[in-house]
Amino acid sequence: MKILILNGPNLNLLGTREPEIYGNTTMEDCLASLKTEFENHEILYFQSNIEGEIINRLQDDDFDALIINPGAFTHYSYAISDCLKNIQKPKVEVHISNIYKREEFRQKSVTAIHCDGVLSGFGLEGYRLGILSLNKL
Amino acid sequence: MKILILNGPNLNLLGTREPEIYGNTTMEDCLASLKTEFENHEILYFQSNIEGEIINRLQDDDFDALIINPGAFTHYSYAISDCLKNIQKPKVEVHISNIYKREEFRQKSVTAIHCDGVLSGFGLEGYRLGILSLNKL
Amino acid sequence: MKILILNGPNLNLLGTREPEIYGNTTMEDCLASLKTEFENHEILYFQSNIEGEIINRLQDDDFDALIINPGAFTHYSYAISDCLKNIQKPKVEVHISNIYKREEFRQKSVTAIHCDGVLSGFGLEGYRLGILSLNKL
Amino acid sequence: MKILILNGPNLNLLGTREPEIYGNTTMEDCLASLKTEFENHEILYFQSNIEGEIINRLQDDDFDALIINPGAFTHYSYAISDCLKNIQKPKVEVHISNIYKREEFRQKSVTAIHCDGVLSGFGLEGYRLGILSLNKL
Amino acid sequence: MKILILNGPNLNLLGTREPEIYGNTTMEDCLASLKTEFENHEILYFQSNIEGEIINRLQDDDFDALIINPGAFTHYSYAISDCLKNIQKPKVEVHISNIYKREEFRQKSVTAIHCDGVLSGFGLEGYRLGILSLNKL
Amino acid sequence: MKILILNGPNLNLLGTREPEIYGNTTMEDCLASLKTEFENHEILYFQSNIEGEIINRLQDDDFDALIINPGAFTHYSYAISDCLKNIQKPKVEVHISNIYKREEFRQKSVTAIHCDGVLSGFGLEGYRLGILSLNKL
Amino acid sequence: MKILILNGPNLNLLGTREPEIYGNTTMEDCLASLKTEFENHEILYFQSNIEGEIINRLQDDDFDALIINPGAFTHYSYAISDCLKNIQKPKVEVHISNIYKREEFRQKSVTAIHCDGVLSGFGLEGYRLGILSLNKL
Amino acid sequence: MKILILNGPNLNLLGTREPEIYGNTTMEDCLASLKTEFENHEILYFQSNIEGEIINRLQDDDFDALIINPGAFTHYSYAISDCLKNIQKPKVEVHISNIYKREEFRQKSVTAIHCDGVLSGFGLEGYRLGILSLNKL
Amino acid sequence: MKILILNGPNLNLLGTREPEIYGNTTMEDCLASLKTEFENHEILYFQSNIEGEIINRLQDDDFDALIINPGAFTHYSYAISDCLKNIQKPKVEVHISNIYKREEFRQKSVTAIHCDGVLSGFGLEGYRLGILSLNKL
Amino acid sequence: MKILILNGPNLNLLGTREPEIYGNTTMEDCLASLKTEFENHEILYFQSNIEGEIINRLQDDDFDALIINPGAFTHYSYAISDCLKNIQKPKVEVHISNIYKREEFRQKSVTAIHCDGVLSGFGLEGYRLGILSLNKL
Amino acid sequence: MKILILNGPNLNLLGTREPEIYGNTTMEDCLASLKTEFENHEILYFQSNIEGEIINRLQDDDFDALIINPGAFTHYSYAISDCLKNIQKPKVEVHISNIYKREEFRQKSVTAIHCDGVLSGFGLEGYRLGILSLNKL
Amino acid sequence: MKILILNGPNLNLLGTREPEIYGNTTMEDCLASLKTEFENHEILYFQSNIEGEIINRLQDDDFDALIINPGAFTHYSYAISDCLKNIQKPKVEVHISNIYKREEFRQKSVTAIHCDGVLSGFGLEGYRLGILSLNKL
Repeated sequence: MKILILNGPNLNLLGTREPEIYGNTTMEDCLASLKTEFENHEILYFQSNIEGEIINRLQDDDFDALIINPGAFTHYSYAISDCLKNIQKPKVEVHISNIYKREEFRQKSVTAIHCDGVLSGFGLEGYRLGILSLNKL
Repeated sequence: MKILILNGPNLNLLGTREPEIYGNTTMEDCLASLKTEFENHEILYFQSNIEGEIINRLQDDDFDALIINPGAFTHYSYAISDCLKNIQKPKVEVHISNIYKREEFRQKSVTAIHCDGVLSGFGLEGYRLGILSLNKL
Repeated sequence: MKILILNGPNLNLLGTREPEIYGNTTMEDCLASLKTEFENHEILYFQSNIEGEIINRLQDDDFDALIINPGAFTHYSYAISDCLKNIQKPKVEVHISNIYKREEFRQKSVTAIHCDGVLSGFGLEGYRLGILSLNKL
Repeated sequence: MKILILNGPNLNLLGTREPEIYGNTTMEDCLASLKTEFENHEILYFQSNIEGEIINRLQDDDFDALIINPGAFTHYSYAISDCLKNIQKPKVEVHISNIYKREEFRQKSVTAIHCDGVLSGFGLEGYRLGILSLNKL
Repeated sequence: MKILILNGPNLNLLGTREPEIYGNTTMEDCLASLKTEFENHEILYFQSNIEGEIINRLQDDDFDALIINPGAFTHYSYAISDCLKNIQKPKVEVHISNIYKREEFRQKSVTAIHCDGVLSGFGLEGYRLGILSLNKL
Repeated sequence: MKILILNGPNLNLLGTREPEIYGNTTMEDCLASLKTEFENHEILYFQSNIEGEIINRLQDDDFDALIINPGAFTHYSYAISDCLKNIQKPKVEVHISNIYKREEFRQKSVTAIHCDGVLSGFGLEGYRLGILSLNKL
Repeated sequence: MKILILNGPNLNLLGTREPEIYGNTTMEDCLASLKTEFENHEILYFQSNIEGEIINRLQDDDFDALIINPGAFTHYSYAISDCLKNIQKPKVEVHISNIYKREEFRQKSVTAIHCDGVLSGFGLEGYRLGILSLNKL
Repeated sequence: MKILILNGPNLNLLGTREPEIYGNTTMEDCLASLKTEFENHEILYFQSNIEGEIINRLQDDDFDALIINPGAFTHYSYAISDCLKNIQKPKVEVHISNIYKREEFRQKSVTAIHCDGVLSGFGLEGYRLGILSLNKL
Repeated sequence: MKILILNGPNLNLLGTREPEIYGNTTMEDCLASLKTEFENHEILYFQSNIEGEIINRLQDDDFDALIINPGAFTHYSYAISDCLKNIQKPKVEVHISNIYKREEFRQKSVTAIHCDGVLSGFGLEGYRLGILSLNKL
Repeated sequence: MKILILNGPNLNLLGTREPEIYGNTTMEDCLASLKTEFENHEILYFQSNIEGEIINRLQDDDFDALIINPGAFTHYSYAISDCLKNIQKPKVEVHISNIYKREEFRQKSVTAIHCDGVLSGFGLEGYRLGILSLNKL
Repeated sequence: MKILILNGPNLNLLGTREPEIYGNTTMEDCLASLKTEFENHEILYFQSNIEGEIINRLQDDDFDALIINPGAFTHYSYAISDCLKNIQKPKVEVHISNIYKREEFRQKSVTAIHCDGVLSGFGLEGYRLGILSLNKL
Repeated sequence: MKILILNGPNLNLLGTREPEIYGNTTMEDCLASLKTEFENHEILYFQSNIEGEIINRLQDDDFDALIINPGAFTHYSYAISDCLKNIQKPKVEVHISNIYKREEFRQKSVTAIHCDGVLSGFGLEGYRLGILSLNKL
């Protein structure tokens, strides 16, 4: 199974900025460990700060399942939301922090409505749990 | 008259995805038929999933009239709205589906306020009606 | 095809009041020109300032397609809306001005939800575009 | 006892339109069966699509009790509401469908505040239950 | 000067219903006394429970000044509001009771925006004050 | 047919508290008279001030139809609402007073959405009307 | 009868600022003409930009009737509102402009609830109409 | 590690009601399989339809980590929320369905604010993922 | 005088949890000191985490005055609110912390409307002040 | 200990206006009795109808504790609220009536957020309870 | 050029209270340094805790430009707002702290709408920047 | 000091479009004059219509202070807001027009919360004032 992990804006800085909140693990570390654990799957990765490039990537349609952390786009990108609606594959939305504990605008997700499941508050472990969930969706 | 038809995010997939809703006609078919019918006009076409590229295209200022379907950007892109405000030419906003029959967020248009007319619910025919309206605006 | 053009309150004054906004064309002029252009259709016309008479007229059920401009009733007449819901024929809602450029209450349409398409901002030309759309709906 | 059954807009079409929702029973059938069951009462009936005619009828003041289904006027006619306020007789509001299961605007009743009881969701049976309730109000 | 006094729904019952609130004076008494006091003006009177008939009457355009009490239509009739907007003559809105002391919905007036002045809470005396104001408007 | 009549919090005090509002009839009197009138049905009764005990009772599933007055739980108990959703039997919600005439919070019912019909404002007679409605639901 | 005319903040500038809106008549002119017309009454006048001084003046309790234009305090001074509530004398609220034609915040009056009548939109003539109304209140 | 799995109202019916939505697996099956997979942990289970009994159980304080599915209490039980706030142990909130795809009220969680993570939309698998997450929290 | 002190959910933990906020005094200490100070009154005490048990206790009706701290039920239990409405005795609501300094949901009290007075922010001393107030209510 | 009792607008009229609501006791009586009971404290008193004078008095900073009844300023004076924030001494807000039983605007307090405790509904006794609370704050 | 610097309530305490937030510089220090830097201008200063005195000072009309920090009046004083509207001179609003980082009520300014520019978050330096801006406005 | 001036969408057109509003000065003119005045600083400039490119530029992290005018992104780009939050350097937000005088949506800034100061309404002069403020921030 080809699994696309897709990260939105500012998530390229994971592990180097605000380590007291997000820890020292970079997304590269995280991906390495996921590739080891799930060696029988192919794990693709894409990150962009540009909303439309994320849509472009999703439209490439070369994956079997999606783990998406849309970052701040979660809260207002109806364009990504429309795009997700068109994808008929397992889709899991991941948030590193527990969005119920943060500002009110972060508790609204316009993208989750077109995902199968949502994981929030598990740190980078959320990506792993997301993959684990794919078999049972 | 040079007429720019400009489509927003996900509208590149017209005709291939969700055909039960949007039919089998692609945007290419639609453009071909418009070029045939309006052969005395030059019909330009641009589509992008990236909000800022749409603004860049609009600022090129090489057209005499605009038919725009901003897709999901309709509902939140004040940046495109500001850009449209600056354009002193006939501008028509087109929505393929009747937005009054859809989710509440789709009933707010931040771009329509800077267009001359709005067409909603006529399918791809909306583009043709938009061009027909240009003579009389 | 019998096409009923139905206008709501105050639209009987088109062409004689506020000509700087609505122009000098009366509805009679408009109808005359439509009858000439679409001579192979029968064009019926009805206008009333009374909400219930509009419902009565719609229930007469003697037409094949509807072009309706409910005027101010657009924004609060759930009774006309319910009536439109019952009519299984092509229905197009027309607004002379672009309602997105006007007061906030005008941006809500309780009748459009039961029409096929909506045209807004094309002046009296909107009626003509509405008829042109009927073939393709 | 003279009982006025008063129906608002579009309710003259009961039994002939949308039978899959409202059944095949017409209001005439319903009235016939009510007149049989309650032969010791006089049952008056009035229906209008015109808000003000409903007020005119109510002001005639020739009945001892009222069963009213204001149809869509339920949700916005403060004029009928004011009129009901003036009537010092048993008043029951009937809705054929369960309004809690429908659109949000249907869950607001500006007329029920001046009725004694409200029945919602019992189909045409609601008129009969309304009459049954009059002895006990 | 021809002055049209126009009353909306339920105001035909003034003086006969709820006398503890509105007193025993009927509108006929009120008109008689106004005609005596203002004998050099022609006082026209119209009342209707039907919104559209009020618009029809206003469109007759046979008066020099307007005193209007739209009753419950004050709060939701955008159709009457649109009609008033078209009338370029002195227009005064009168409410018998002080609407600021009543239900919240009565504190919104969609018609006052197109009148010159508003009088609220002076009982039937409000009509007299309205006429007195016409010279100075 | 076994009919469960289920009352929520504070309804055990009917007839002894606030008699000027609710009358002197106790729920026991009411039940006695219902059992006499509907002797061919078995009438079960349960009352509790504890939200979860009401759910437990509903889950016992030993009845053929339900007449429920959830009392104050009507307005916020999504737990009872969920429980009702699971019950595939005729369900009627009864309110003794007309909830449209009371405080705003009482006009919201989170339980009615999963009932077939709602009766409000008929006093204890509402329970009887509810049973009468069961044949026609 | 001693009539207190009380003006709130910025109303001391009437006639000298924004004459295109408020005209050239000063409050002094207005008072002079009122004193001439109503010579059998004693007309007191007080203006202050300080909310609490207005309350102090009202508590002096040396008048028989009140004409008050609270200016901007109309919209937020619950302190003046509480003070008006305590005064058991004829009280009329006057606004020079029609507040329904202005910003939304001006359409809320926290003081009108404790006045008998409200006059809005009659210019300085409003003070005269207010006095005229006192005999009939 | 002692893990308490705590289920709120109506969750005792899992597997027997609405199988087309929730599947045929009962909570007992689920627990059995969890005990097998996580044999080195002690898995405690508690379910109640009574809000206060859930609080009592949580206050027993005999566990090392919590997997809680508060059911409908999720959306309004500030009492359970306050109780969770006092518990200084790993806490994971589980929802079987994707709450973003359901009614609006289900998208508000007053309990999640005092949990570490939230899982939504994974079916009964959510409980397993919750336990898996405990090592990494 | 028999005084019932009634505490809602989670208040059994006073003094042992979050001592930095609530101090080290337990409710038992508090009661002991109140019994000493007010030895000529009988002080009853009841605490429950179960909403309905609090209603049951209130309905026992064996006290002369009530000091109630409904805890989190303050903010949503219309059932307790209805129950308090029925009690014709001095009733004082106590909150240990100043609810105006806490989350927004805590600033709404659905129970205070049926109490005579409210004390908020005085710590456990609030119970003592509540008793002191009973002589003067 | 020097205790400042500070009253806001209209509270100088206590005991002489609306005695059926507020009783016949004047603030002078109340102060006399407080000075007798608390003879070992110095009790200062200030009342003003002017918001800014209340701030001036608070800034004098010559007291050890504050009992404040801001009257109507409670609901909108962010200026007094800011001033209270700066005072690092025991501060108690007192309302004579139970504000939860009154108009909605009275249930919002912008000043209480910077007080230690709030007393509402105990009549003039509230001032005494406020002083009693100072030892324990 | 005569420049009036006008400060609202509580700003007389700058430098002596909450120095950890506002620093140790007093307004006197600030004024001294401004007078030195801008010696070719006359710098007037006024501060008051009383809303109406601020209006009185503004109406004195003896200055050529205005730097105003209305303090808490920023958020609700429509009276000051109306007064500013009348002043046809350069007007700059200054806030010491960045109001976007503070409570929600501070993000609404009813006075800024009648100023030319707004400076927020630059500490006392804001007054200096405000004067610097006057040449270019 | 390296100062990055960063402009959002449509600001590349300054000076050439809508000169009656924004004047004839282009951003190039403005930059030239700033470079002359602040010759001891290095002034960097970047403009983009693409939200993500602005984030990319900010992440380059090659500047010592930031002057940002996010244009329309001010009002909805949580992605830029998150990015600003990560930057620990002086940050000033500039708006050319006074946003308090414009449409309501422009009065909300989601980016200002992560800037030190905000300047609004000073035209292109705002950039100069922003740089002047950097020494004192």
